[in-house]
Amino acid sequence: MLWFENKNKTASLSTRIRLARNLKNVPFPSRLKPSELKNISSSIARKIMACDFGMKMRMVDMDSLGEVEAYAMVERHIISPKFAANREGRALLLSEDESVSIMLGEEDHIRIQVIKSGLCLKEAYSLAEKIEDTISSVLDFAYSDSLGFLTECPTNLGTGMRASVMLHLPATESTGELKNLAAAASKIGLTFRGFYGEGSDAKASVYQLSNQISLGVSEENALSNLENIAKQIIEREDKALEKYNKEALQDKVYRSLGILKFARRLDTKEMMTHLSALMLGERAGIIDLKDKVPLTVFITLQPSMIKRVAGEMEPNERDIYRAEAMRKYFETIG
Amino acid sequence: MLWFENKNKTASLSTRIRLARNLKNVPFPSRLKPSELKNISSSIARKIMACDFGMKMRMVDMDSLGEVEAYAMVERHIISPKFAANREGRALLLSEDESVSIMLGEEDHIRIQVIKSGLCLKEAYSLAEKIEDTISSVLDFAYSDSLGFLTECPTNLGTGMRASVMLHLPATESTGELKNLAAAASKIGLTFRGFYGEGSDAKASVYQLSNQISLGVSEENALSNLENIAKQIIEREDKALEKYNKEALQDKVYRSLGILKFARRLDTKEMMTHLSALMLGERAGIIDLKDKVPLTVFITLQPSMIKRVAGEMEPNERDIYRAEAMRKYFETIG
Repeated sequence: MLWFENKNKTASLSTRIRLARNLKNVPFPSRLKPSELKNISSSIARKIMACDFGMKMRMVDMDSLGEVEAYAMVERHIISPKFAANREGRALLLSEDESVSIMLGEEDHIRIQVIKSGLCLKEAYSLAEKIEDTISSVLDFAYSDSLGFLTECPTNLGTGMRASVMLHLPATESTGELKNLAAAASKIGLTFRGFYGEGSDAKASVYQLSNQISLGVSEENALSNLENIAKQIIEREDKALEKYNKEALQDKVYRSLGILKFARRLDTKEMMTHLSALMLGERAGIIDLKDKVPLTVFITLQPSMIKRVAGEMEPNERDIYRAEAMRKYFETIG
Repeated sequence: MLWFENKNKTASLSTRIRLARNLKNVPFPSRLKPSELKNISSSIARKIMACDFGMKMRMVDMDSLGEVEAYAMVERHIISPKFAANREGRALLLSEDESVSIMLGEEDHIRIQVIKSGLCLKEAYSLAEKIEDTISSVLDFAYSDSLGFLTECPTNLGTGMRASVMLHLPATESTGELKNLAAAASKIGLTFRGFYGEGSDAKASVYQLSNQISLGVSEENALSNLENIAKQIIEREDKALEKYNKEALQDKVYRSLGILKFARRLDTKEMMTHLSALMLGERAGIIDLKDKVPLTVFITLQPSMIKRVAGEMEPNERDIYRAEAMRKYFETIG
């Protein structure tokens, strides 16, 4: 659960780099018949698995992967929902710690993803680039001198890179500055959005900042733009947090722990609010959650996930199930 | 803390009987000089202490009692606030378990009080009467054939008896029926009021039902009127409680425990709300608080009490102090 791990207990949760690549002279996956896609995916997989990336990789045949496992990977951000839904003829290459995943046959032939804990765009990009470089020695990528790397969706043309930073911004949120941030980010080619989409309440104050443009901007420039803005946002968040009344914050954090440890019914929205308060508490040095990672537990408690693990349930039963899981998870804390 | 002990975990917390008596041919305490009052109180005390009530009694010289101890007795409902404020020339006789207390020199010369856990008007009255009877063998009471026992305040004339039942009525409260109850009680000579006075929020759904009239009604009739109405109210409360959604109630009770165990700031109103929820939880068989008695702990946390024990504090500091005490008190629960 790297993307929520937040080892450093800061406002920057994780960094994600994704590179889209396609094979020269081979139609995009959507234009291939299942059997053709399977052949291509298998052939790519074999060649990549023969490479030395300096880390152990395993291959997952998506055809033979069950729905539950596939969606569990979506919840862990290893694969896209689209990839989980259309598994036929597709394959996944995965590093042991799941920080590196390579989807074969998603929208593009090859999608390399690197996730790292904290804000570390250069480090994550450098790993993604190294992997891409190694792969390019065994496969020919579709590339145009004027457009750069060719991708099925025009928004990915050019570098084929999407870099994202996941940020926890409860203090900034309460100052009402987020709208301005979103507008400012947009002006310099970045997207700033609530992690669970606009308008969703169940977001735990988590936001994602990404580069919007991959054409006409070098990877280096895109990354440094993103890093600069991310650092400014984090600085603002830390300053807003410093202004909090320490006693009020302590009270808020521990009440949230009390609710999570004792409630018998919890809806997603309330759970996220309290989990976010615990993260805030860790950042402010108020609470020690030991090995517990507030935002990872909720993954297993999404309505769709509960349904898959525990079967069909009424919303009220889900709330009871969720509260039970929460009590168990935080049993040793406080 | 008998009046809040609620050993049976029911809606009826405790029963209190108070008998007012005065000496024949001796002016009421308010008409006496301090030295005269002291002589009278001492003389009464000596005579009563020589009696055999079948229980160990001790005498407390109110003159030499400090303010802190006196107010602690008020908080425990052993003496009246008036008696604590004007200690000069007064004395108190007290049984070991504090269920029997006799104030000498309050508004009347002698005020006998019996407090018992639960609803037990006859039992409590029979003890009070036995004590009164024993005292009457060594002292002559002021009595008129037409008026009954004479008291300083006309509202106590006649039997000199005030009988009260303390009730926990959160379920009835939430149905909105309490106003009707108060009106109905008033019509048959009873008073029904919030324990901390009308309009106070910090009342934990505790109400007191008492007889209003002591003239022209025998003790027996007053007690059976009170008992009948109390039983009806309790029945209504139990029925209202049965209608609660069990899961919702469980959630409410445990959230309250979570808050009491984890909050870092608690004002009186919120504390009372959560303590009341714990009592409700015990009544509904949802939670086992072992030896803990929700409503007794708050006595030591009244603003005036905190001031006396821990010194002058800002309201915010009091809230922190209160939350700390609450965490400690419920440490072993849940």
